[in-house]
Amino acid sequence: MNRQQLFEQIKKKESYLCVGLDTDIEKIPKHLLKTDDPVFEFNKQIIDATKEFCVAYKPNVAFYESLGASGWESLKKTLSYIPKDCFTIADAKRGDIGNTSSLYARAFFKQMDFDAITVAPYMGEDSVKPFLEYEGKWVILLVHTSNKGSSDFQLLQTREGKFLYEEVIFASQLWATPDQMMYVVGATQLEKVSSIRQLAPDHFFLMPGVGAQGGDLKAVSKAGMNEQCGLIVNSSRAIIYASSKEDFAAAARREVSLLQQQMKKLLNEI
Amino acid sequence: MNRQQLFEQIKKKESYLCVGLDTDIEKIPKHLLKTDDPVFEFNKQIIDATKEFCVAYKPNVAFYESLGASGWESLKKTLSYIPKDCFTIADAKRGDIGNTSSLYARAFFKQMDFDAITVAPYMGEDSVKPFLEYEGKWVILLVHTSNKGSSDFQLLQTREGKFLYEEVIFASQLWATPDQMMYVVGATQLEKVSSIRQLAPDHFFLMPGVGAQGGDLKAVSKAGMNEQCGLIVNSSRAIIYASSKEDFAAAARREVSLLQQQMKKLLNEI
Repeated sequence: MNRQQLFEQIKKKESYLCVGLDTDIEKIPKHLLKTDDPVFEFNKQIIDATKEFCVAYKPNVAFYESLGASGWESLKKTLSYIPKDCFTIADAKRGDIGNTSSLYARAFFKQMDFDAITVAPYMGEDSVKPFLEYEGKWVILLVHTSNKGSSDFQLLQTREGKFLYEEVIFASQLWATPDQMMYVVGATQLEKVSSIRQLAPDHFFLMPGVGAQGGDLKAVSKAGMNEQCGLIVNSSRAIIYASSKEDFAAAARREVSLLQQQMKKLLNEI
Repeated sequence: MNRQQLFEQIKKKESYLCVGLDTDIEKIPKHLLKTDDPVFEFNKQIIDATKEFCVAYKPNVAFYESLGASGWESLKKTLSYIPKDCFTIADAKRGDIGNTSSLYARAFFKQMDFDAITVAPYMGEDSVKPFLEYEGKWVILLVHTSNKGSSDFQLLQTREGKFLYEEVIFASQLWATPDQMMYVVGATQLEKVSSIRQLAPDHFFLMPGVGAQGGDLKAVSKAGMNEQCGLIVNSSRAIIYASSKEDFAAAARREVSLLQQQMKKLLNEI
């Protein structure tokens, strides 16, 4: 899915919501444990209940990897089940020397068929470039994350008076265009969202941190939106664990519907 | 395996060699493709041929992940096959927000039983700490890597005149002791090895970059060794692909035997 197609989906659904499929076998409703593939069964019902109101799904690979080979199968089945008009993100935060990053790219873009993968920048250009070699696929680079530890290194200031995360933006803009690269920009620090939008006017931002982590949807949308919306706002736990009982899918639907109504309003206002 | 036990193994085998099991199904000898699990069969023969001369094995997870669920099975079987007196490293370069890093830790330390995992520092303390909660397990933190792109961010200088990789060392020394944490220090830049040894006198360094990537064993050993050796030098492609024919295991054995002889000499000299 290219940038224009993503924007079309956002306009059509009046939503820039991404549902994070951080499906933890220890947290899903107990009645599902009787099924053959409880993780997939949970995801299937969440997808059916939410697909009308969101434009993207983002499974965090850790949740599947922690189950070994069977988790990998659940991830693959989940990806196949997501409707083709939804943008799919492997939240994997990979990054290694060139020949190894190529293999991760093969895993997520060829072995599976994700639209995008999240990538960590620490190892530099040659660790990111192999992911850019797949036409029509996206790298979503970690820039300023939503967690407490983001201040440990991302906010270090360089001799030139720039934050490390700003250096990541400057460097990475030489590696790829806004048609191949998005940035992870946490929703928990509002002033950073505005300042990153100034540095990267055209890039889509994947924004975690709304919901369980405390970010405010209206404020971050005002700070981060551009002419093509430019935002994919992710919420995971607040949606998929809205109820821990048999009504989990209906409860998830209520949550995404509420978020979509807010997003519709914000898309018209901003 | 704790630090003292690792040092005992190094003294016993007179080797600080790690064999990188970067097993690419597209590169292994063709006759193995007829077996049920070619990747495991290749690793099994490599392990049998090399275990006498090395103290550690390091499968890079990307090579297994790129094969999906079956790759995951091959990795698990490989790990079980490695003799218990060898140190095992999951070269995974993971790192995510706390609850997600916990799941990666569960995957590599509980679902599988690796001694250590490589972790990327960009997301800071709370992305690393969950890996430290497993007693007797190790975090091997990326500090200064061996690839070209290492200069993009790792060598940025902060306002205080420190390199980013130095800031990673300073910060991480507050998170864990040299009994729980090692550092990835590429063998390709000699002066960095010496300077990192001064900052971290007691830590073990995992050193990639000897062999295919060009690092010189004698020089990096002189620059990096401490009283407990303090080095695990990794070589992958130069060993496991020493021959592309049926004699691959014997060829690998010749390579590790040569490296072990050099290491024996260096352990006595330095």
